[in-house]
Amino acid sequence: MQTISENRCFGGVQGVYSHASSATGTDMTFGLFLPEEAELGSVPLLWYLSGLTCTHENAMTKAGAQKWAADHGIALCFPDTSPRGEGVANDDAYDLGQGAGFYVNATESPWAPHFRMWDYIADELPRVLTANFAIDEDRQSITGHSMGGHGALTLAMRLTGRYRSVSAFAPIANPAASDWGRKQFTAYLGADEAHWLDHDATHLMTETGFDGDVLIDQGTSDQFLPLLKPESLAAAMATRRQPGSFRLQKGYDHSYFFIASFFEEHTAFHAEALYR
Amino acid sequence: MQTISENRCFGGVQGVYSHASSATGTDMTFGLFLPEEAELGSVPLLWYLSGLTCTHENAMTKAGAQKWAADHGIALCFPDTSPRGEGVANDDAYDLGQGAGFYVNATESPWAPHFRMWDYIADELPRVLTANFAIDEDRQSITGHSMGGHGALTLAMRLTGRYRSVSAFAPIANPAASDWGRKQFTAYLGADEAHWLDHDATHLMTETGFDGDVLIDQGTSDQFLPLLKPESLAAAMATRRQPGSFRLQKGYDHSYFFIASFFEEHTAFHAEALYR
Repeated sequence: MQTISENRCFGGVQGVYSHASSATGTDMTFGLFLPEEAELGSVPLLWYLSGLTCTHENAMTKAGAQKWAADHGIALCFPDTSPRGEGVANDDAYDLGQGAGFYVNATESPWAPHFRMWDYIADELPRVLTANFAIDEDRQSITGHSMGGHGALTLAMRLTGRYRSVSAFAPIANPAASDWGRKQFTAYLGADEAHWLDHDATHLMTETGFDGDVLIDQGTSDQFLPLLKPESLAAAMATRRQPGSFRLQKGYDHSYFFIASFFEEHTAFHAEALYR
Repeated sequence: MQTISENRCFGGVQGVYSHASSATGTDMTFGLFLPEEAELGSVPLLWYLSGLTCTHENAMTKAGAQKWAADHGIALCFPDTSPRGEGVANDDAYDLGQGAGFYVNATESPWAPHFRMWDYIADELPRVLTANFAIDEDRQSITGHSMGGHGALTLAMRLTGRYRSVSAFAPIANPAASDWGRKQFTAYLGADEAHWLDHDATHLMTETGFDGDVLIDQGTSDQFLPLLKPESLAAAMATRRQPGSFRLQKGYDHSYFFIASFFEEHTAFHAEALYR
């Protein structure tokens, strides 16, 4: 593991690190904020999964997240959204290939060799973190934005017992029924839609739900509402009687200004589960 | 207007009053909490509409509401749920007739002469309150439980501009599709379902929505979930992009213990709109 940078931040350290990933077969870069408490012992961890076109850096610099994580003594991990580099397949579109991994293990050519973001986030990166930093693996929660909200919800509902709480900002809520999903699942997972369902938050909410509280925030002026399909997930949550809150925030759009406005409340939500 | 009782309560006064109602053609009784601030000038008002079988008294004594209303300097009005008394039609069932007015103006026999709870809550009682108490009619909000949640939501969505905010505890969310609704609407409004839609919160949310934030709390262990149909309203809110929160509260049932647990948050929610 290589240290790219470390900066003092709200009494803790905001670091950027890279490592050779066996999941993706590439070097992967991630951001990690450790609060001051990590100098004394291991701390709980909140994962933040980013959206389309993002790297590890966007949320790390634009969400205003470290302030709230520091207040609660929680670490934040900001993974990248796909493998990258020469020799890694790509597409001219912003929403396929590099920067658009969709948190799945691709089975189809040309994506299968490197696009294994599910395994990377579910298995490899947690081991890298606990081996190298003062992270308490028994206290993890997860959040994310847009494609990252999709990732957070699907990981949380499938990895039972892994995360104590899950939240999402404007998640892609029903990708199997959206142009943000159908195109990518066809490319990464193939045309058989049965293989998509394990990566559809609305389907998983209907079939499985989450053993803990769920918090969703969605801006009412989000320019991508027809692609996000919040109504599908809201209905599935209520039908399932899933404990949690589905909030529609008036006038907010899809930007980091929206995320920053509610990151304090999301952090407090996760802190309640992480310190229970 | 007659004073039935007045008790000092959290620095203010919890009163019970009765008056001859022209809307219902009967005497009607209501509870009114006035905070200490009402001694100095007019205060904002939060309506609390009760559920099946309740009188003005249930929420007044079991919701723990006065503490939070006092903290925010807000008045609380607890109306009765139907006309009552000899000469007023009734039914042996707990969910029809006296104690079950459903906040509509009945058009059908034998209910039409007295069951005019819509007019009573929308028109007459507000005038009684502002004529007799230090209530600021420009600052009103509304909440309610079960049948009263239905009433709060339908009044708020139809009386545009009247209420600054609306919330509900376990509302009957889609009565036109529920045994809590179809039976009563048939009796009070007749068999033509087109006349029911103005009294169906899911329909109104789909067609109209509310110009302000909406807060809904629903317990996941509510014994009446199949009758309440929260999934219909949750889907309608998200589809409309209605600003607000739909919360599913783990383990809570339909009782006043549920209401009491969240009354502080509902009061704070309304206070934000009333003091804006």
